[in-house]
Amino acid sequence: MSGTDKTKQAPLEPGPVVVLVEPQLGENIGAAARAMLNCGLTALRLVRPRDGWPNPKAVAASAGADIVIDAATVYRNTAEAIADLNTVYATSARRRDIVKPIYTPEAAALEMRGKYAAGQKVGILFGRERSGLSNHDVTQAQALITAPLNPAYSSLNLGQSVLLIAWEWMKSGDASAPIERPTGDSMPAARGSVELLLNHLDDELDASGFYRSHNQRPMMQQNIRNIFTRADMTEQETQTLRGVISKLAAMRRRLSKPD
Amino acid sequence: MSGTDKTKQAPLEPGPVVVLVEPQLGENIGAAARAMLNCGLTALRLVRPRDGWPNPKAVAASAGADIVIDAATVYRNTAEAIADLNTVYATSARRRDIVKPIYTPEAAALEMRGKYAAGQKVGILFGRERSGLSNHDVTQAQALITAPLNPAYSSLNLGQSVLLIAWEWMKSGDASAPIERPTGDSMPAARGSVELLLNHLDDELDASGFYRSHNQRPMMQQNIRNIFTRADMTEQETQTLRGVISKLAAMRRRLSKPD
Repeated sequence: MSGTDKTKQAPLEPGPVVVLVEPQLGENIGAAARAMLNCGLTALRLVRPRDGWPNPKAVAASAGADIVIDAATVYRNTAEAIADLNTVYATSARRRDIVKPIYTPEAAALEMRGKYAAGQKVGILFGRERSGLSNHDVTQAQALITAPLNPAYSSLNLGQSVLLIAWEWMKSGDASAPIERPTGDSMPAARGSVELLLNHLDDELDASGFYRSHNQRPMMQQNIRNIFTRADMTEQETQTLRGVISKLAAMRRRLSKPD
Repeated sequence: MSGTDKTKQAPLEPGPVVVLVEPQLGENIGAAARAMLNCGLTALRLVRPRDGWPNPKAVAASAGADIVIDAATVYRNTAEAIADLNTVYATSARRRDIVKPIYTPEAAALEMRGKYAAGQKVGILFGRERSGLSNHDVTQAQALITAPLNPAYSSLNLGQSVLLIAWEWMKSGDASAPIERPTGDSMPAARGSVELLLNHLDDELDASGFYRSHNQRPMMQQNIRNIFTRADMTEQETQTLRGVISKLAAMRRRLSKPD
């Protein structure tokens, strides 16, 4: 009988995961949970909520969306929150100097629907109330979602942002025209595998002195990460590239050991 | 010069009129105003707001949507609020025993767009937070709008209801591309640059013995090329990766020279 309680509480498929990165106000977390459940989404993840968790104000504002609030999980950083996800979208109200496809909520929902149906774990990142997602957060996503709103007044409340995406997800349930990006037989790698690859590369680049020669290390690092994230690799491909990196760096490592 | 101030403040066409019937919380009126302006709507009417008008809590919650709040007008009843409108829709979360067409927000927005373009004055009624619109209110509208939400949890916050309708209105006039694929300032790299990069990588992998350890060299090579081709790099990014490769392989090359 163990585990049946959860099943009873969750008659819905969880749908895409909603990840709130450093949300500040409990009220907004509650409003997001309510909007999610309105549209049939139940998987909520929180990265470093400012006022801790659980948060009574979130419970109050969720207006009975307990199934979402009670199951919410907390993470120390965005990378951990998305480690098991295959495809991640980052919501953004503004243009970024980051080369990624930009979807309308509707187009994103259609694509998510297809990926979800194919068994992928999909997630959407939402940023802080005041400043949105950092470029570091955005870099970890494969694509951006930007709602075409009034250009003179485009900043949405956090709960409203979640509602727009969740609403389009709900609506896409009727449609059957997903935009597919085939990756052969296999799915995109778990984000954690990509992170391991990028850390591996970073370590080797550090050791080889690559970054020492650049005074713009963070920018350079972000650019490199962005390239590999965009490539939307399979698990096997991350393994292949790790082999590539190891081999390229092997001679240096063999040399530096005796030192 | 009289009247020009208003014109300066209102560069937008007002769009359909949003009518809040007996709203209770100032916060919700503010959230509705914000959602309206997000989606380019500016005409707000209030029927008997519980806490009077103006309402400082509405101003605070509107987050700068002054143009909507300042121009809001107050009415004694629904009939007066809609007296000059040609077509009126009533929003409702639930079924009514009233024989009227029921639109999804999307279908309503498309129809409103056509009527508005033809010069009609169009409006949408939203009910009290707790109980929604009365049957008497609904009777005064030509049609209903009901959002197809999670049947087990379909009650939207007032600000969220306004957002859904306003959002569909915005979309119905929007011609922006569903998916945009920016490449920053620069275009995708010339294929020749990618080829140079891949050859560079191949050479270094050959020299480092990477391929020697695999009997399926062509397949492995193709897989690696595929990853980098899919990343759709800019010219600058190909240069960055060539730097990465050179640096990773530098020690081997320095060593093998004396041989």
